[in-house]
Amino acid sequence: MDIRIDRESAVPIYMQISTGIKELILTGKLPEGFRLPPERRLAEALGVNRSTVLSAYRELKADALVDSHVGRGTSVLPRSHAAAVSASVQPLAWRQLVREGATEVQDPLLRDLLALAERSDVITLSVGLPAAEMLPLAVLRKVQADVLQDVGAPMLLHSPTEGLTHFREALCQLVIARGIQCSPAEVLVTSGSQQGLDLAARVFVAPGDEVVVEEPTFFGALQVFRRAQARLLSVPIDRDGMRTDVLEALLERHRPKLIYTLPTFQNPSGTVMSLERRLHLLALAYRFQVPVLEDDPYYELRYEGESVPPLKALDEHGYVIYLSSFSKVLFPGLRIGWLAAPRPAARQLALVKQAVDLHSSTAGQYLLERFLRDGHYARHVKAVRPEYARRRDIMHESLTAEAPSGVTWTKPQGGFYFWCRFPDGIRQSQLLGKAAELRVSYLPGDACVAGEPGANHFRLNFTFAPPDLIRDGVARLMEALRVMARRPQGGKPEGEATPPIV
Amino acid sequence: MDIRIDRESAVPIYMQISTGIKELILTGKLPEGFRLPPERRLAEALGVNRSTVLSAYRELKADALVDSHVGRGTSVLPRSHAAAVSASVQPLAWRQLVREGATEVQDPLLRDLLALAERSDVITLSVGLPAAEMLPLAVLRKVQADVLQDVGAPMLLHSPTEGLTHFREALCQLVIARGIQCSPAEVLVTSGSQQGLDLAARVFVAPGDEVVVEEPTFFGALQVFRRAQARLLSVPIDRDGMRTDVLEALLERHRPKLIYTLPTFQNPSGTVMSLERRLHLLALAYRFQVPVLEDDPYYELRYEGESVPPLKALDEHGYVIYLSSFSKVLFPGLRIGWLAAPRPAARQLALVKQAVDLHSSTAGQYLLERFLRDGHYARHVKAVRPEYARRRDIMHESLTAEAPSGVTWTKPQGGFYFWCRFPDGIRQSQLLGKAAELRVSYLPGDACVAGEPGANHFRLNFTFAPPDLIRDGVARLMEALRVMARRPQGGKPEGEATPPIV
Repeated sequence: MDIRIDRESAVPIYMQISTGIKELILTGKLPEGFRLPPERRLAEALGVNRSTVLSAYRELKADALVDSHVGRGTSVLPRSHAAAVSASVQPLAWRQLVREGATEVQDPLLRDLLALAERSDVITLSVGLPAAEMLPLAVLRKVQADVLQDVGAPMLLHSPTEGLTHFREALCQLVIARGIQCSPAEVLVTSGSQQGLDLAARVFVAPGDEVVVEEPTFFGALQVFRRAQARLLSVPIDRDGMRTDVLEALLERHRPKLIYTLPTFQNPSGTVMSLERRLHLLALAYRFQVPVLEDDPYYELRYEGESVPPLKALDEHGYVIYLSSFSKVLFPGLRIGWLAAPRPAARQLALVKQAVDLHSSTAGQYLLERFLRDGHYARHVKAVRPEYARRRDIMHESLTAEAPSGVTWTKPQGGFYFWCRFPDGIRQSQLLGKAAELRVSYLPGDACVAGEPGANHFRLNFTFAPPDLIRDGVARLMEALRVMARRPQGGKPEGEATPPIV
Repeated sequence: MDIRIDRESAVPIYMQISTGIKELILTGKLPEGFRLPPERRLAEALGVNRSTVLSAYRELKADALVDSHVGRGTSVLPRSHAAAVSASVQPLAWRQLVREGATEVQDPLLRDLLALAERSDVITLSVGLPAAEMLPLAVLRKVQADVLQDVGAPMLLHSPTEGLTHFREALCQLVIARGIQCSPAEVLVTSGSQQGLDLAARVFVAPGDEVVVEEPTFFGALQVFRRAQARLLSVPIDRDGMRTDVLEALLERHRPKLIYTLPTFQNPSGTVMSLERRLHLLALAYRFQVPVLEDDPYYELRYEGESVPPLKALDEHGYVIYLSSFSKVLFPGLRIGWLAAPRPAARQLALVKQAVDLHSSTAGQYLLERFLRDGHYARHVKAVRPEYARRRDIMHESLTAEAPSGVTWTKPQGGFYFWCRFPDGIRQSQLLGKAAELRVSYLPGDACVAGEPGANHFRLNFTFAPPDLIRDGVARLMEALRVMARRPQGGKPEGEATPPIV
């Protein structure tokens, strides 16, 4: 038996011996039934204490590789024994190892909706995606070849955590049209605006801290704040956006760390906050010294009416962190978003991002910078606006034609969504099942509220599905509502299957 | 004065009045000196109480837009007053708003090093980057055009949080050669392997929890664990990797949540953990029920000698989470890494990733999948290995030729780095300054240890800089060491500037 011992090694000698023998057994050099040398003899041969060899043999027994009997010494066992004992190592209780709060959100809704979007037989009205068939792929083909040619390897190497300087300059240029003045040092490129939310929560929200959200609000933000173990203070929305009178009452009694708002074409309600409310909100933020997290991915997708300036444009005192995105206009799959924040805030957010993912895709930043600089971005916005307006009108007409009585909605002036209410007496879970059966997906309103699942709402997207599918999808969903309205909602009728939405 | 009042609005009426007048003043419709109507008259005109108008005027005074004097009524002030008062709104104390622990790491070293890599006059031996000039850009050009042609818009849309199924299948294929068996359901695509570290910390480490790290270790991991407010337990490394005898002693007294290790071509030490130690480490993990986080970005970059199987390949009981990356072989700027973990762990990590950034770049995943599937990846690894071996040899020769006495290092069998020791009596901070002055960058060893800045070490990378610059860079750094060794280290000599490394 060839066993090497290294007395300098950090591995205990008994373990070196048992590992050596284990290797010989597992590689078949010591066959089943082979008798190991008596402990004393091996100890002498290796120049170690007998107790060391005893320990080594004990290890091998514990691994069920050998067994010993008085008079017969120690011999190699058949493989099956080892397998049996191997199974006796305690499996790790992964679930119990998960720290408290890490996966507060049990319902992996968003993930499932993304997966659903991959299914071809379902009409997808649930997602927040731009029209895939309108994406400027021919332009992209040329731009990606050009950039690779012009930039070369740096396009594929690391880049600063804050983002490429030229790209940040282009972003500052972009928002001048929104009335926002910012410098590249105030801009942080993020891996999608979802990351902007997550970074803000990591920097400003400790477990137990309070955060103001609208009701309803973007459910990706709810996920982030829940994981941060924030206490959510909901402020209702009416047709003019967040009810700032309710906000004022809340701020008199609470000290939230952030006010999170989507003032323009709010997700999911489609509402635009009035200028008056925006000024009131800012006045309250100043008075109560609370930073504002403004999420504004739909600003450019206005189909009629006058633009209202973002809070960031109205904020003269550096209270607003402004999140935006390319995912609603161009390429959600690139995962490039950005934020503009007062410098001390931008700096803290960058410090955290550095440990989170170093930086966002360098290639994606070069591509989007070229799209901005060469006017492809502006041209694309101009091209999609009338088409999205048309799809919105088609959805409105389909709803008008098909909706059973009791279903209500508001036609939005921009953005991506209709927010619809259905009559009491229909259960959201059963409606979801029926809709899946009829192969149409929507976003249930429960996902968009912080508190108790309240009113009966759902969100429909009108930008992703082409016009024909919008008509079909709305018809299917309204059919599901009609069926549900006719059915007693106590228990499930026999024989009905509720396919899960996955 | 045209002021509209909406009695249904959530904005208080006094605020509607003051906002209305404010707009008229700011747009210049009410010029400086203009007299506002007496309160009583305006109240009558608007059909509100006099006290409401009083409140509105009080707001305008607070904003320094108007002023009132007995007998002269209320009149519009010059703009400069408003600007002055506007400045009296309390600026937000952003730094005080940052939650405890969010930015524990004060030294933004990595970010600064990334920025330094952008400077063209500095020889960069500090980074962990592949050779930029060897990146297969011509192949990439063709692959990106092909994929865009074949896949179309889905390449730019959302994809599942876990990663594209085909890509995960290709990753499973890739690691079969490393002795790792895994299924796509155990794989999670990450935004660089830095994100894998961050996700693991978020799922498993609560503030105050203990984490085992090697000393020295990857400083990006230290950043992550510090931000998670973990207590770090350091286990020293010798030439056979982590001292598992020290680990054993630690585990008898502590209950860490994770054992973090880089067993193969360790960053920064270049060490390969022996098979014996690997088996010992796993035995300890099983006995003390601690999950192992194995970081393995350099596996394929072995320039001589026999491969040692990853812990993940030796682990029969599902204790190991395996992190890997494309950043050391192909395109760090794409930010695509991945991990393989037992299913319950993979599931929890995916649930957190969903809220963190939805998913990693879809385009990046399609590109890398094609690189794997069509053999471009394997061909590139084969192409860089001999060149990296050559650069390693050149660095070794340069060190041998140039190093002043007292400087020591070990020639690594693979990976990216030399880990060098310099004599006592030289201060790291002053050496950094001198090196920057001589325009060469390295990674100071302090950044790689969890505890007190201990021994005098630095890390040199030999893959990024071309051979000539490796020679020059080593010569410059050794010159800096020679200068420092001659100089009394008490205070800075007069007239010397210490340029910051940025």
